[in-house]
This record gives sequence, structure tokens and C-alpha cells, in this order.
Amino acid sequence: MEFFKVLKKHKHSKARLGLIKTAHGNIHTPAFLPVATKAAIKSLSPEEIKKIGFEAILSNTYHLYLQPGSKIIKKLGDLHKFMNWPGPIITDSGGFQVFSLGFGLKDKVGKILNKNIQEEQVGQQAKLARIDQAGVTFTSHLDGSHHRFTPESSIKIQEDLGADIIFVFDECTSPLANYDYTQKSMERTHQWAQRCLKAKKRNKQALFGIVQGGLFKDLRQASAKFIGDLPFDGFGIGGSFGKGEMKKALDWVIPYLPSNKPRHLLGIGYLDDIKEAVKRGIDLFDCVQPTRLARHGTFLTAQGKFSILKSVYQTDKKPISKNCSCDTCQNFNRAYLHHLFKTKEILGARLATFHNLWFISRFMEKIRRDIKEDKNIG
Amino acid sequence: MEFFKVLKKHKHSKARLGLIKTAHGNIHTPAFLPVATKAAIKSLSPEEIKKIGFEAILSNTYHLYLQPGSKIIKKLGDLHKFMNWPGPIITDSGGFQVFSLGFGLKDKVGKILNKNIQEEQVGQQAKLARIDQAGVTFTSHLDGSHHRFTPESSIKIQEDLGADIIFVFDECTSPLANYDYTQKSMERTHQWAQRCLKAKKRNKQALFGIVQGGLFKDLRQASAKFIGDLPFDGFGIGGSFGKGEMKKALDWVIPYLPSNKPRHLLGIGYLDDIKEAVKRGIDLFDCVQPTRLARHGTFLTAQGKFSILKSVYQTDKKPISKNCSCDTCQNFNRAYLHHLFKTKEILGARLATFHNLWFISRFMEKIRRDIKEDKNIG
Repeated sequence: MEFFKVLKKHKHSKARLGLIKTAHGNIHTPAFLPVATKAAIKSLSPEEIKKIGFEAILSNTYHLYLQPGSKIIKKLGDLHKFMNWPGPIITDSGGFQVFSLGFGLKDKVGKILNKNIQEEQVGQQAKLARIDQAGVTFTSHLDGSHHRFTPESSIKIQEDLGADIIFVFDECTSPLANYDYTQKSMERTHQWAQRCLKAKKRNKQALFGIVQGGLFKDLRQASAKFIGDLPFDGFGIGGSFGKGEMKKALDWVIPYLPSNKPRHLLGIGYLDDIKEAVKRGIDLFDCVQPTRLARHGTFLTAQGKFSILKSVYQTDKKPISKNCSCDTCQNFNRAYLHHLFKTKEILGARLATFHNLWFISRFMEKIRRDIKEDKNIG
Repeated sequence: MEFFKVLKKHKHSKARLGLIKTAHGNIHTPAFLPVATKAAIKSLSPEEIKKIGFEAILSNTYHLYLQPGSKIIKKLGDLHKFMNWPGPIITDSGGFQVFSLGFGLKDKVGKILNKNIQEEQVGQQAKLARIDQAGVTFTSHLDGSHHRFTPESSIKIQEDLGADIIFVFDECTSPLANYDYTQKSMERTHQWAQRCLKAKKRNKQALFGIVQGGLFKDLRQASAKFIGDLPFDGFGIGGSFGKGEMKKALDWVIPYLPSNKPRHLLGIGYLDDIKEAVKRGIDLFDCVQPTRLARHGTFLTAQGKFSILKSVYQTDKKPISKNCSCDTCQNFNRAYLHHLFKTKEILGARLATFHNLWFISRFMEKIRRDIKEDKNIG
């Protein structure tokens, strides 16, 4: 069974139609994966996720390691059985969360503890996540308990979770880090990538490497070359960057990645970014944005996003989007959704989540059609 | 069209099978109505409520009057259209909520302001709900704004909401009130009942009277006689009482209510209470208990209720109830539900609500079957 196959190349860009085959089913790419952070797509059932049109989901190793614990999930079978999602699952490695959440400092990446920094400069952060060559010691954002992730333990945890595609443990470097730190961090990520390859025992899982290198062209290229040459089944592109920077980074990186393996742009989910990334040869996306916006009453539509909480919607009999065929738009109007959010009814978050995921699922469908028909993408 | 028909009487008790016909469909009685307090059954869609087997729901006039406002619902059609529930709807009159919530004093009934009480005894309560012969002036639990309900305004609001069955505006007397106060309150409720009958303009809505009288036999009987003689389409039995007291009150009241009209025991939903009340001739029930318990992780089963939060369920592969055919029990095990509640995932509340309502829907089905087959009830 071939893991990945490029089915068709787009005439006007580097976009491609692809097919990923896993033991739990296929993923037609380019694909967006909704995020089941803690083994649940917020408010929705697995059946609904399937109905919306998603073939695969992504779940977070860091969160599942802390709650309920990867050993408990292993005891119960695996993540598929645990949450009753029979389709393909990707788990990230926990690297990003260890850095961004472990700190507990307002979810900001970019505050990674550099051991070279003097202790007095570091202050409280030193207590929350400490990186060394062997791994990361961090503090749980839930109860302050201490934990340690290494490349080897991250792979073990992901093997216990049993996803179809797993990721190497990397250091997600801050976009604010200077050249020297970014280079050192990248070299550590490269060493960790090799250790992950060695640590991996299960054959049923595909392992993806991660390209880092921050916002520096030569580092990004060096990272893509190094990681791209290792025998991974696919590649993630990590880091955090602004819009223009993302496009630049992809332009630097993609030429060095083998064209016969899938590429996942980690954590990116804005519609414009997805289009630009697909054109540059990205196959997989994941992002909490559509579901997070939904829980705050913000709906995605072809005309842009809008907040249903505005008083102008109080007596609006129209659906969120008149061309949308999702259950929410077919059954409820803006006035009712406005009311549900005003009164903090759980049903509001649920109906909004369904709509936003439906919207992005149709968006990806259209992108795949555009590639197939050699039209302009998006 | 006959509004209510007794289809069969039970051989061993006063229970009966009945059929209520409304413009929005039929209700087979004895029936339990899930409560859509603010025009939504917490976390569930109308489609699911139907799938669970409910033919009718109950919604709260007080809450809808405050949010979004009955005039807004009227502008949007009616409550059916607003929340997309095509089946029968009952609205209560707002009387109970004005007293229990208006006070804002920990949801306790039993603290009704008696104008005869000296101002210094009353303290802060005077600011929150003040009863006079014409109606009640109360303070919103949401924003502290002032409002006034009268029998006439309650009927007008319920006409704007457009439910199929509406209730008279009554004073829900505290079980702690003395004989004198309970009598005066009951007499006021009787006057208000007559005023409601006069105020009602729409023919499509059935109007139910409410029997009060607290825990006093002669008052309960007098109230049942008085209200039972008025040309209502059905009757609610109001008040708040302990278990033994509920049975006694029903025994006192039911003989005075016309047997060809439906009887609704307001706000009661414990399984044992439902059985006892059905045996005494009650046809309709509503209660927030099954849905409220669900949101706190408590599941109803034939073996009693239990909290999924207990650590013993962390690795339990069994469904909530092995004989339950609900979507929750068919698809998810206790370990996963435990995890969802531990991590405060919305999906947990939703799956628990579905199960608890499914359970009570099957419970009512069994009661109707028992009456049909002249078996012991429950």
C-alpha cells in the first residue's frame, strides 16, 4: 500500500491533488483537519464530523498526555476507539504546546527559555519550561505538576495514542528569536528528528518530520534540506509567522522537500493562507480557528466573517448564509442564533461550530475541484 | 376537533391513556415535556428532541419575556418558528419564576413578599418582587430592571409567544406560608384565573387553570373545586411540596377536577413522583431535572442515577447502560464520558442530556404501555 500518491498536478501553480492511504481510511488532499484538542471536536459528534465531509482529524499529544493520559487511552484500545472516530487521525508531537502552553504566559510562543539567558532575565519562566539537549521539562497548565518530554517519550506517547500519522518532537522557535538562537534551536530539532526516527517502533504509523528555521532564509533552506533527506513519510512545516512571512518561508522550503511525500503546514487555517499555501504545494492543514471563532459567535461566510452578537441580527429572519446547505443554515435564522449566543445556550456554540466546519469543508472541496479542473485556486 | 380524549382507563389505578390534539400535532399522555427554558433544550436540536420521542416541549414565559422579548418572537412568527420546533408547545405563565427567580434569593420559593408584613421584616425582598391584588412588580434576575406581570399581561405575552397550551398567571405559594397567607394567596390566584379567562383572545390556544392551596387539605379542595368549575381546557397543579405531601395533595385535588380534561403536575420530574402522580390521574409533566443533572455529569439509569465524574469510570469500557439504545450508549463508553466531563468538553453535556431525555422518554413509553396492558405502573 502506497502511503501517498500525487493524483494530479495543477497547471498554474505548484498545487497538487493527492491521496493519503492509512489503515483507517483515505485522506484526499489538499485537506483541512479539524482539531480534536482533547479527543473531541468541541460540541460535535464524530458522526457529524463525517457528515460535514472531513475524512481525518488532528488531536494534541500534549493535552491527551495530561488528560486522560496516553496510558489510559492505550488501555482502552487507542484514540480511534476512545473517541469513536473510525477515520484517520494525526497527532502532533506536543512540542508546540509544551512551549506555548507550558509557559502559561498568555498562549504566546516566542518566549522560549534559552539556557544562555541569565537566570535573572528569565524570571518565572524558568520554572515553567526548561529546554536542554535531551528534552524539555515543563509544568502542566492544569495543575502545576512537572513533566518531561523527550523525542523518545513523545514517540512512545504517540504510539500509545495510536494515530495514523504522528510527528517528531521539535522545538517551535519564537519568531522573535535571533539568528544564533534560531540556528541552535534548529540544530537541536534536527538531532531530535533523528532520535524520533530511531525511537519509532510501530510500522502502522507514518512519521512526519518538521522543518523549522524561523524567519531566516538560509536556516529554513538548511532545515528543509536536512529534514527532507531523512526517511520520513511526510513533512510538517513549523514555526509561527505573519502573512507575508509564511509565503516567503514556503517558497524557501518547498523546493527542498521530496515531491512524492505529503506536506503539512502546521496550525494554519485562515482561508487566504490556505489558498496561498496550496498554490505552493501544501497538502494538509489543521487549525482551531474555525471552531474557536464559532464558540465566540463568529461565523465564516463567503463574504467574510461576522459576529452574530451584533444587535442588528436580533430580528433578522435570514439564515447565516443563504447559499449554505449546512444543517444550521437550513434550520435556524440569525435572530435565533443571536438569541442563543446572547443567552449563552450551548446549542449556539454547537450550531456555529457545525456551520464553520461545513464552510471550511466546502472551501477545501472547491480547492480540490479547482486543481482538478486547472482553474484558479479558491 | 376534540382537544382531549381519554383513550383508556387503567384497571388498577386512576391512571389513564389520553390524547391531546393541537394545531401543531398530538400529545399522547401521560407525557413528560422537556423544558426549553430559553427556547432551547440545553445543547440539543429540535430534530434530536423528536428523535428521542418527545411530541411536545414546555418553555418559560418569564425567561422569554426578558430575552429576547415576546414582541420580538411575535415579530419573527411565534415560538415554533423562532426555535424551529414544529410540534406542540406549552408555556407556563411566569408566575413561578417571578416568585422564585425574581427574588434572586438562591432559587427558593417560599419567600414571597406579603404586603402585610412590616417593612422592616421584609428587608431587601421588597425591592425584588412586590405582590398586590392587580399583579406583581419584579426585578429582572439578568440586569436588575423593573417589570410588572398581571394576569392580563401574562396572557398577552403568551399569546405573542403562540404556544398551543398556555397557563393562567398564579401566585405560587411557599410551603412555609401559614394558613391565613395561603388562603389569601389562593383567593388572589382564583381572581387572577377569572381575569385570565376574560383576557384571553386567541382561540387556537388552550388555557389551563392552576390549583393552589399549599399543604392545607381544605384549601386544596376549595381551590380544585373553584378552578375545576371554570371553563378551562385543562388544569395545572401548582405549589412546591415534599414527597409524601405531593401524593396527599393529589389525592385531595384530583376528585374535584373534571375527568374529561387533562391535568398537568407542574415542575415535577422525579421518576417515583411521576409514577405516583400517573396512578392518581396526572397526564402531563415537565421538569428541568433530567437535563440539569446531565450537565453536571449525572446519568439516569434503571438502576438509579450516578455521577460519571467518579474516578472508577476512568477506564470503564462499558456504556452508561447496557440495555440503553440511545446514541450516547451505542457510541461512547463511560471512560470517554468521564474524560469529557473531567475536561469540561461541551460534548459531554450534550451526550448526557441526550441519554437522560432518552431514558425518561422510554420511561413514559413504558408507563403508557403499562396502562394499555393494565399492568402495574412503572
